[in-house]
Amino acid sequence: MSNSIGRLFVVTTWGESHGQALGAVIDGCPAGVFLSLGDIEKELARDIPDIELGTKRDEPNKFEILSGWFQNRTLGTPISIIIHNIDYKTSNYKQLQDLIRPGHADYTYIEKYGHREFRGGGRASGRECIARLAAGAVAKKVLSYFEIGIESRVIEMAGIPINSKESYQKAKEASLENANDGESTGGIVELRAKNLPVGAGSPIFGKLDAELALALMSIGGIKGVEIGAGFSSAKMKASESNDEFYLNNGKIRCRTNNAGGLLSGISTGEDLVVTIAVKPTPAISKPQKTVNIKEMKEAMIECKGRFDLNFTPRVAPIAEAMAGIILTDELICSGYIHPSKISSSSLLKK
Amino acid sequence: MSNSIGRLFVVTTWGESHGQALGAVIDGCPAGVFLSLGDIEKELARDIPDIELGTKRDEPNKFEILSGWFQNRTLGTPISIIIHNIDYKTSNYKQLQDLIRPGHADYTYIEKYGHREFRGGGRASGRECIARLAAGAVAKKVLSYFEIGIESRVIEMAGIPINSKESYQKAKEASLENANDGESTGGIVELRAKNLPVGAGSPIFGKLDAELALALMSIGGIKGVEIGAGFSSAKMKASESNDEFYLNNGKIRCRTNNAGGLLSGISTGEDLVVTIAVKPTPAISKPQKTVNIKEMKEAMIECKGRFDLNFTPRVAPIAEAMAGIILTDELICSGYIHPSKISSSSLLKK
Amino acid sequence: MSNSIGRLFVVTTWGESHGQALGAVIDGCPAGVFLSLGDIEKELARDIPDIELGTKRDEPNKFEILSGWFQNRTLGTPISIIIHNIDYKTSNYKQLQDLIRPGHADYTYIEKYGHREFRGGGRASGRECIARLAAGAVAKKVLSYFEIGIESRVIEMAGIPINSKESYQKAKEASLENANDGESTGGIVELRAKNLPVGAGSPIFGKLDAELALALMSIGGIKGVEIGAGFSSAKMKASESNDEFYLNNGKIRCRTNNAGGLLSGISTGEDLVVTIAVKPTPAISKPQKTVNIKEMKEAMIECKGRFDLNFTPRVAPIAEAMAGIILTDELICSGYIHPSKISSSSLLKK
Amino acid sequence: MSNSIGRLFVVTTWGESHGQALGAVIDGCPAGVFLSLGDIEKELARDIPDIELGTKRDEPNKFEILSGWFQNRTLGTPISIIIHNIDYKTSNYKQLQDLIRPGHADYTYIEKYGHREFRGGGRASGRECIARLAAGAVAKKVLSYFEIGIESRVIEMAGIPINSKESYQKAKEASLENANDGESTGGIVELRAKNLPVGAGSPIFGKLDAELALALMSIGGIKGVEIGAGFSSAKMKASESNDEFYLNNGKIRCRTNNAGGLLSGISTGEDLVVTIAVKPTPAISKPQKTVNIKEMKEAMIECKGRFDLNFTPRVAPIAEAMAGIILTDELICSGYIHPSKISSSSLLKK
Repeated sequence: MSNSIGRLFVVTTWGESHGQALGAVIDGCPAGVFLSLGDIEKELARDIPDIELGTKRDEPNKFEILSGWFQNRTLGTPISIIIHNIDYKTSNYKQLQDLIRPGHADYTYIEKYGHREFRGGGRASGRECIARLAAGAVAKKVLSYFEIGIESRVIEMAGIPINSKESYQKAKEASLENANDGESTGGIVELRAKNLPVGAGSPIFGKLDAELALALMSIGGIKGVEIGAGFSSAKMKASESNDEFYLNNGKIRCRTNNAGGLLSGISTGEDLVVTIAVKPTPAISKPQKTVNIKEMKEAMIECKGRFDLNFTPRVAPIAEAMAGIILTDELICSGYIHPSKISSSSLLKK
Repeated sequence: MSNSIGRLFVVTTWGESHGQALGAVIDGCPAGVFLSLGDIEKELARDIPDIELGTKRDEPNKFEILSGWFQNRTLGTPISIIIHNIDYKTSNYKQLQDLIRPGHADYTYIEKYGHREFRGGGRASGRECIARLAAGAVAKKVLSYFEIGIESRVIEMAGIPINSKESYQKAKEASLENANDGESTGGIVELRAKNLPVGAGSPIFGKLDAELALALMSIGGIKGVEIGAGFSSAKMKASESNDEFYLNNGKIRCRTNNAGGLLSGISTGEDLVVTIAVKPTPAISKPQKTVNIKEMKEAMIECKGRFDLNFTPRVAPIAEAMAGIILTDELICSGYIHPSKISSSSLLKK
Repeated sequence: MSNSIGRLFVVTTWGESHGQALGAVIDGCPAGVFLSLGDIEKELARDIPDIELGTKRDEPNKFEILSGWFQNRTLGTPISIIIHNIDYKTSNYKQLQDLIRPGHADYTYIEKYGHREFRGGGRASGRECIARLAAGAVAKKVLSYFEIGIESRVIEMAGIPINSKESYQKAKEASLENANDGESTGGIVELRAKNLPVGAGSPIFGKLDAELALALMSIGGIKGVEIGAGFSSAKMKASESNDEFYLNNGKIRCRTNNAGGLLSGISTGEDLVVTIAVKPTPAISKPQKTVNIKEMKEAMIECKGRFDLNFTPRVAPIAEAMAGIILTDELICSGYIHPSKISSSSLLKK
Repeated sequence: MSNSIGRLFVVTTWGESHGQALGAVIDGCPAGVFLSLGDIEKELARDIPDIELGTKRDEPNKFEILSGWFQNRTLGTPISIIIHNIDYKTSNYKQLQDLIRPGHADYTYIEKYGHREFRGGGRASGRECIARLAAGAVAKKVLSYFEIGIESRVIEMAGIPINSKESYQKAKEASLENANDGESTGGIVELRAKNLPVGAGSPIFGKLDAELALALMSIGGIKGVEIGAGFSSAKMKASESNDEFYLNNGKIRCRTNNAGGLLSGISTGEDLVVTIAVKPTPAISKPQKTVNIKEMKEAMIECKGRFDLNFTPRVAPIAEAMAGIILTDELICSGYIHPSKISSSSLLKK
């Protein structure tokens, strides 16, 4: 259950970082959606957006669509996508077998499952997200029928706010500098969905912001989620925080968007804006104190291997994927997208 | 569905702010839990923690337990708690019937449901949370068997950080001052759960932080959720952000707690720490621009009635309730609490 | 969880037979459905269709709609219906406290929950179904917008097939005769839903027949469920069992209906036909062998009190209610009924 | 959603009969379960229990376990099993493209999805069940830790009751005879689970019989499900139908088992007994009347290809698989099997 998300559009992911393959099963995608291999390829390729910051694992992400898809159209049946791991047998992790890495899932997984996936991060590895990208590609394709687009951008990296090419360069340099010291850094990603209809989302525990918070917090390394003005709202007065309504060509609009496109969890038609905090990659070569759980003795650990110097840029497309999945599910559940046929799902266009 | 939360310990809430009653059905509570009327009374009484800041609606919160409970013990069957609304027929809202309040659910609910609950906020009102408090009281009682405690405190109000009686007084004054100007303000609440076992929470989409983010973001007016160091993590280096492990009397512990008690969504045994941002109460007497949706004309609105000057203090116990519900559900799903009998649910105590 | 049914149209029931009240929360009912108190009253009144066969408990079924409903229209929010128990404090059960009744839930509930609801059957009592009738009344009202009707009839009672007034009289007499001997009898109910659209139901585990089987088997005392020709199909040849297609005024129809209106779990547009087997009421005055679980000694038991001589006629409206709930949920999930507004849910009518 | 079943032990199946592969993802299997390739192979091999009756498609069922499994042990993470289709490109179906087969999903799928999977039965094909067998093999392995065994046998075929080798031979001959006439036949399967603990199953909508009814009715071609004495109960008196309790070596037992091991949906510890009705394979070579949906004209159809003469024997292992899945899920949800570690899941053995 915990590897599935969604109510009528349900995504299940599977696979370990050092297993043979990873994959996603997408259940509840309407039939008739045009979907090319390129649509998925394009999203998978975003997994290493910046080679200088990313992991050095040079994996071409070979994938196949095994079901639910024929002649570039979805069938309405579960879409099974498999992504093969190429060099999964190599393991640089063995030497760390009995040391639990600070900031990592090692300790909690051992306690939960009674064993450690010593071949690597297992399901807790960032590699798991490749399956989310594949599922997100399908969701985005569905949303594209309704001209709903999802975008993301890194707005802070290694403590440096990014709003220009220059500032990005600065942030990248700061990340690399830290890497040279055996360190890693984090950052902030802003996510934006455009052209949502008014009225998507459900009251109380099905609020769209709540669903998004779950989906985004489920990405490894995310420590905070904000909707619209987020924590800044806490410092505002109501007259600053409230978005006043006005009429624009007969349509009700908001002058500002502190709400981030959601009132009581239901979409206002303004851009959906979400911000998420990414922590520094926990695996670093700098020595850290830890415990050898076999001998139950304190010890030092130095993580060697292929780690992200700063995985904020890699989180951005994953956040888009998760938002795509949640929005597709919500629009189906809210009656905007027809659950079984894309052709008749034109409610929204009206 | 959207009015229920939980997998094996499921809470469903119902009721409008200006209806006859509100309530919660708690399904999946083990049998044999000692539960007195006072346990619920105590939590419901926290709804107006500070009369000077809270709404003036002076409701005694008369409630009844209608099922699942006999001779001060839970039966294992659904616990139905009803909270009567006393003065529900009075309505100061009528004059605003066609004006959609900025920052409120009026507009989105009309679009979603094709009508407006003009008697008041309906389900979108903060009043809905009284049912959450009742359900939270039951959850906390279950957790108390395992010595798991949940606490909350307001750490910022009206922009003033609170860490002393003095600073609280200052924050209160600032809130009241704003109220005199027809304004309202927001704040920040810190939530803490103590004595969790190691290993609660599930991987991927069932991460405990993800579940908590959903539960807390589902409270009206919450615009941000942070786990542990939250957004500050984004500015740290890994060696600062990672919590190093050490041994304390043969037990693995973390020296710091930037993770907020969770690694990959699974509890480390350290305090669970969550921070949430509360926006200013949207209904204010200060005039705001809006739209008359009947005439589709721009208009001004001044909200009169019983509104919170700052509902941050009221959010604190609700956040505790939501955390209690999520933790109880997770501990049942994770095999720490027996799903049907509290007496044999001593797994955790071992 | 086990007290809720449905995915988008979710019904939760609560209450013990000898508690203060029972109730249902109906979440996901579209807004704007016309619903009068009489609509519910009418269904609740069917609980004792034949006083000569039914329990002697003469309860007027006083009920209230506490939420989700205003001025005879549904609001789109959870509808909470409460049914008060009048004489709940009287108990004839005490003397049996330590004897487990054959055919009853006593033994299994004690094992599961570690205690016995000695005031009566608790949740396992047939009384629980009164809440299902209330929820079913709401579902039927939603379905009536699409001219979908649900009917039931007792087709066998006390071993006597019923197809005429005479045969019914004979079956009734057989039931009463058995009752005079301290016995009870069972029967068979046929359920029929008319005017379903083609295409409702989902593949694999969401087959409409599977959902119906769960819903109907969840009624106490049901030991079998058949779709269409049911067990008779097992004795047919394919050319007998298959329903041949033909054209009727440009519409595809089936000449026979052995399939009971479902092919691969999806509706064909023919009548949905389901048959269910009702076992004899287990509580009888005739002495039976059992065990005293306190003393762990074999013993004899004679059940006194208000029991149905044959509860088949009482099962019929409950079966209708369950079918109504499942069909409403399925038609919302399948995109035939709009999830939040009845007015725009005219997809089906086209 | 409709391709998943279970609450904490969740099985999702995917794949079309004429696609590249089919598969199952098993989420929620505890870590540490010993599972060999042979365990799965053995169940998959049961797909064609009797070559003379079965389909002629001679597929070796090549499969792989792609995740959740390492060195013959489960990891606690989702187990992804893929079963390759060998001759999936061959298609004898094309000629029937516009004719809807009586008794088949063709018509309802076209209406639901707006297209027909003309390569073959798609998801509605019996081939889908191969993934259920794989998942069932995992479930049975979990249950074997608690000495819970599941058995099935064909008790009627082609109208001939089977209780001896001779009667089986007679039934087989009757089936073959019908096949020679271009016909097919059905039958009845009895399913039995032994050694269940007392107290598994949940009240009301989570009754174990209700869950089993859903799971078994979800198998293609099943038209009826009975628990214990099933439809015979309807003709009994209570004193015949009730199973009297007695003591056997200090353990409470039932003298008879008309209840089929369940009282109010909760296990009594007696054998769980379920009977299911299998309809004749709908695809037959005998000419049948139907409709050409392209030309909307009545037509005749003769199905050629690889069809079961009687698929009752093939249903038996699938019914076992479904029961295995439901029981494993229920025992985890009921607290008998630990959700994450098999080693500590010894509650039941006590």
